[in-house]
Amino acid sequence: MTNGVSDSVSHLQDTVLAVRLTNSGVVLLDQTRLPHEVTHVTVTTVETMIDAIVTMIVRGAPAIGVAGAYGMVLSARCNQNQAGFKEQLLNDAKRLKAARPTAVNLMWAIERIEALIESSSSTDASALTQAIEEEAIRIFEEDLMMCKSIGQHGKALVPQSARILTHCNAGALATAGYGTALGVIRAAFADDPTVQVYADETRPRLQGAKLTTWEMVQEGIPVTLISDNMSAWLMKQGKVDLVVVGADRIAANGDAANKIGTYLLALAAKAHKIPFYVAAPSSTVDLNTLTGDAIEIEERPYDELHSVDGVRICPEGVQFYNPAFDVTPANLITAIITEAGVFKPGDIAQTFAK
Amino acid sequence: MTNGVSDSVSHLQDTVLAVRLTNSGVVLLDQTRLPHEVTHVTVTTVETMIDAIVTMIVRGAPAIGVAGAYGMVLSARCNQNQAGFKEQLLNDAKRLKAARPTAVNLMWAIERIEALIESSSSTDASALTQAIEEEAIRIFEEDLMMCKSIGQHGKALVPQSARILTHCNAGALATAGYGTALGVIRAAFADDPTVQVYADETRPRLQGAKLTTWEMVQEGIPVTLISDNMSAWLMKQGKVDLVVVGADRIAANGDAANKIGTYLLALAAKAHKIPFYVAAPSSTVDLNTLTGDAIEIEERPYDELHSVDGVRICPEGVQFYNPAFDVTPANLITAIITEAGVFKPGDIAQTFAK
Repeated sequence: MTNGVSDSVSHLQDTVLAVRLTNSGVVLLDQTRLPHEVTHVTVTTVETMIDAIVTMIVRGAPAIGVAGAYGMVLSARCNQNQAGFKEQLLNDAKRLKAARPTAVNLMWAIERIEALIESSSSTDASALTQAIEEEAIRIFEEDLMMCKSIGQHGKALVPQSARILTHCNAGALATAGYGTALGVIRAAFADDPTVQVYADETRPRLQGAKLTTWEMVQEGIPVTLISDNMSAWLMKQGKVDLVVVGADRIAANGDAANKIGTYLLALAAKAHKIPFYVAAPSSTVDLNTLTGDAIEIEERPYDELHSVDGVRICPEGVQFYNPAFDVTPANLITAIITEAGVFKPGDIAQTFAK
Repeated sequence: MTNGVSDSVSHLQDTVLAVRLTNSGVVLLDQTRLPHEVTHVTVTTVETMIDAIVTMIVRGAPAIGVAGAYGMVLSARCNQNQAGFKEQLLNDAKRLKAARPTAVNLMWAIERIEALIESSSSTDASALTQAIEEEAIRIFEEDLMMCKSIGQHGKALVPQSARILTHCNAGALATAGYGTALGVIRAAFADDPTVQVYADETRPRLQGAKLTTWEMVQEGIPVTLISDNMSAWLMKQGKVDLVVVGADRIAANGDAANKIGTYLLALAAKAHKIPFYVAAPSSTVDLNTLTGDAIEIEERPYDELHSVDGVRICPEGVQFYNPAFDVTPANLITAIITEAGVFKPGDIAQTFAK
């Protein structure tokens, strides 16, 4: 079983795998220690998996989904010799879902495991454990394959020796592996080693500086770090060929919510006539959200703004505004790259209508 | 003499004076300790003044100019009873000019004092010392009055209860007092206490977070800190009425060089039809520079990007790009606010032609 996992990702360096199922537990890359320390935590119980999700040792919605599913594998392994096995499994499912209640992928992944448990007529705990492992690995593999498919579709849009600017981290660390926006970059680089990356540092949480540059360094992809306010000047000098970013939600009209700063970057790209691509699995498209105006934007704690890694950068008496996301209107997006192909933002509703 | 200085700035809180001449020496607000500590350093010799300029205890081109002139006062006070007084003065002038060779205002201020020394026929060292003090204080007062005049011209452009976005620090700390962009804000707030400020944190050196917010807090002007990538989203929500920034150089065609990130901000303002003003003394206009393309942009050390206050934020193996300034083209600038009035960028060459 775990061999299956290893095989499917054998082309990736182990260090860029956020979540890995092994016979001795779930191995998590501790993202709170990056980029300074590459530390893995082996989780063997549901309790410690919940802790890891809450403390953001694992982050990024798709990666959390996989971690949740693997948490159910741990529940099965721990409880398969106990009385009330199924009840214990369903109880753990409930606890895992509560670990990060806003993470849609966590709910979705665990509900797939719950459905399997509920529909199972087997009284053989070992067979059910086996079935849960298979389903969890399917969740992992599907996400990985989706990212690789996004990469394949996206790389056709990347010109020779492209200089690609990205924002935040839509990478292997945030998914089962490979990434969405960084998946496009990985796929392009595999064909053309002259591709280069510019990474916005992505204040306030610095996911660009801490995670994206680290992923690129692991894979030997040349990466240049800039502060978020440099993008337009870089473009003005002809140093950027395209922009590719991820998305947290895509509305029916093609408006895309993503990490704060994406909208400003899209305006800069438009002003310089540089293609601006959004790379995301089709599950990110929410046809119930008609336009970006309907997307509620989370505001995050102020300590992210007034300090950097615990070092205070401003005086007392200042007010703060800290939206975690913004919405890029469809008219600034050249195309949306999904596992099903590349689409104009205006064609999203029709393409993904059920 | 020093009473004259105190009187002319009595309406400003002492804490927002970067450089102050007293009978016991030149009192510098230590800007390397802001915003965490308000520490003043009293400088009594040319040697320690040079140190203060080199270590950026005092920063901002006009403020450095005043510090240099006051350094010459210290030279006169220390040497007025020595043989070879004038030679010693001219030698100190040379040393002071070398402290920050790229600071145009430093050269200009010290050359004014040098001209005075060279033209003096008096053999009375005390009278020459007195004349140097008077000239140095004039340099201080002229800069202060220029900033206040910019403020008076600029405030007419600020609507009632305006929310004003600014970038970097073009404030009292960078000038003799009052500031240029922040001078406009001070003047507007004096008439209308419902004015509010948004400050870009201004990576990589964080002058917005560290200095601009601190100045605003000192004066009781409400200030909200944002990261540089939030400006467009703030504008989209109708939360910004105008943008005002400083300038390091203005070309004959109205293009303006200023802190990196200014150009991106100007693009965002244009996209949202928000007025974008540049506030700067007319000495910033360089008619020998025909367009912004001719302005050479300084690249600064990489430690500013890979670390924040000594805390490393990215892995080894990353490349960096760290331009200190960018150029905002004239067509993105609504008007340029100078001590001589408010001008369209296209009228700059004609207005300031000699």
